[in-house]
Amino acid sequence: MFENKGRTELGELGEFGLIEHLTNNFKIRHETSVKGIGDDAAVLHSGDKEILISTDLLLEGIHFDLAYVPLMHLGYKAVQVNLSDIYAMNGVAAQITVSIGVSSKFPLEAVEEIYKGIELACNKFNIDLIGGDTSSSKQGLVLSVTSIGYAAKEDICYRNGANEGDLICVSGDLGGAYVGLQILEREKQIFLENPNIQPDLEGKDYIIERQLKPEGRRDIVDLLAQMKIVPTAMIDISDGLASDIMHICKQSEKGCTLYEDKFPIDPMTYETARELGLDPTVCALNGGEDYELLFTIKQEDYTKLKHDVDITVIGHITDKASGCKMISKSSVVHELKAQGWNAFKL
Amino acid sequence: MFENKGRTELGELGEFGLIEHLTNNFKIRHETSVKGIGDDAAVLHSGDKEILISTDLLLEGIHFDLAYVPLMHLGYKAVQVNLSDIYAMNGVAAQITVSIGVSSKFPLEAVEEIYKGIELACNKFNIDLIGGDTSSSKQGLVLSVTSIGYAAKEDICYRNGANEGDLICVSGDLGGAYVGLQILEREKQIFLENPNIQPDLEGKDYIIERQLKPEGRRDIVDLLAQMKIVPTAMIDISDGLASDIMHICKQSEKGCTLYEDKFPIDPMTYETARELGLDPTVCALNGGEDYELLFTIKQEDYTKLKHDVDITVIGHITDKASGCKMISKSSVVHELKAQGWNAFKL
Repeated sequence: MFENKGRTELGELGEFGLIEHLTNNFKIRHETSVKGIGDDAAVLHSGDKEILISTDLLLEGIHFDLAYVPLMHLGYKAVQVNLSDIYAMNGVAAQITVSIGVSSKFPLEAVEEIYKGIELACNKFNIDLIGGDTSSSKQGLVLSVTSIGYAAKEDICYRNGANEGDLICVSGDLGGAYVGLQILEREKQIFLENPNIQPDLEGKDYIIERQLKPEGRRDIVDLLAQMKIVPTAMIDISDGLASDIMHICKQSEKGCTLYEDKFPIDPMTYETARELGLDPTVCALNGGEDYELLFTIKQEDYTKLKHDVDITVIGHITDKASGCKMISKSSVVHELKAQGWNAFKL
Repeated sequence: MFENKGRTELGELGEFGLIEHLTNNFKIRHETSVKGIGDDAAVLHSGDKEILISTDLLLEGIHFDLAYVPLMHLGYKAVQVNLSDIYAMNGVAAQITVSIGVSSKFPLEAVEEIYKGIELACNKFNIDLIGGDTSSSKQGLVLSVTSIGYAAKEDICYRNGANEGDLICVSGDLGGAYVGLQILEREKQIFLENPNIQPDLEGKDYIIERQLKPEGRRDIVDLLAQMKIVPTAMIDISDGLASDIMHICKQSEKGCTLYEDKFPIDPMTYETARELGLDPTVCALNGGEDYELLFTIKQEDYTKLKHDVDITVIGHITDKASGCKMISKSSVVHELKAQGWNAFKL
């Protein structure tokens, strides 16, 4: 149908370019639509709290591989990655809808496993499942999760509020989910070549969990509130530190300097990356799926969080003209490149 | 993985049974969650208006066939079927999110067509596109739409409010979308057998449009408000009149009597059904996808709408013990059976 027309490959645009291209004609008409496309979640005005809405699509063969993802973990993760977007707005999630498309050849017991994982996540994070859709799928397993959260207007953190001199902070540690995935992929290949060999995941439990069972950082949202810190900008790390800090810089019209020696990398992530011949810093920068919170704070807020072991200051915001840089351990200046995940170039 | 365990086929439960089975353990914890699973949309409390949330998953090969569904129509329909759920709560939709999974082999121009349809629907129904997700898909085209609407608490129509003696009303006409689909399927088969034969859709434009380009009945919501009628219960006809009136009766713990001779069936639907050897009444009862509003009103409201040509009274609500019946044109009493669409038995 399109053979004779101009043809543009989707991969040329990438996910963010594609969204921008497809939606830049769309008008916003309602006063209740405070923030549309372009942040972790949309913001709707209603009553005394603003409402946050975020949605994610998870497709078999793209976002997960049932060869090594247990179904219960899949349900759990599908909820967590979506809640993470609400937390990235500095909000608290309260409801989700879950839509699922599943082959009619799947037994009920398999779908029950997915819902057990969803239920576990709901129980742990105090979330109500309020709706959804179920359908047969002729192809693979399809999950679509939408979450609804709440925040006071003055607490909401957009991506565009970073100012020059602000400190760049990250929760937890980075790169683990990506290195865990490499281990799972390696064991899958070994299994495919010889199904009698049992997977060797010994001593890798932390990074495997980072990949299979990530947790949205609701605790950081609560901690920031306790510390009376409202970040100037925030995003969750789904695509990788480089890609995600560049979102903040682009939308804030600023630059940044990151310090490689400050990156929080767990020893298991570090050693396993080395074993696999990977650079741990590259895993932290471009691995993605850590679902940690990346945020900027005013310098004056530094004393409030400097003793918190779960938050690391990794750099600062600069002016736009300075661009996005990383100072390596050997003091070489590198320009950051977003090599975040491009679903259209798999 | 599940071969040796008890195995239950999904088709045994059907879509509604499956949702009930999977979610009956889930607790509702938040006061803002006024209504969870089990109606056309979820209801959240916030501010002076309640918020309505509804979500639909549309999968290639299950919900649509790209052999005859133009991409722009697909985008348009994906939005409309979702808005229809908000209207079925007697609310007004204001925002949507759209997630799309598409093969990386799809050219950008194809995705643009889908978004043109989405934009058309947004413009026509005054809707803001506020978010979504895009991904590559290894399988077919996947669309997931979530819509957000608003209604005053006292205006919301649930499925469970019908009372004995209430009149059963339906907007527009029934069966057209299903008969239109049969024509498209027939022409597809002819084309597959001989690609040189052009599809013969002449004189079938209305029913083809009913299938390809349905419209949510926002106008009926406005009309009811003008007439100062708040239906006692309401649902949209997505699965078919029989299945959908039975949802109202089940949730209201009532029965119903429908009169076959009152069913609004367009002459084109009627004649084409006959041509195809189908019973027009069965098409109206079980065809589905009409996206008309089916609602119950107090008898005293009848005078307010009796002259409206777009609303037809087709029966009344009875007590639960009487069950769900249809009186045929020859005065034979039939028990209604929900032969609505079961995605797991395709």
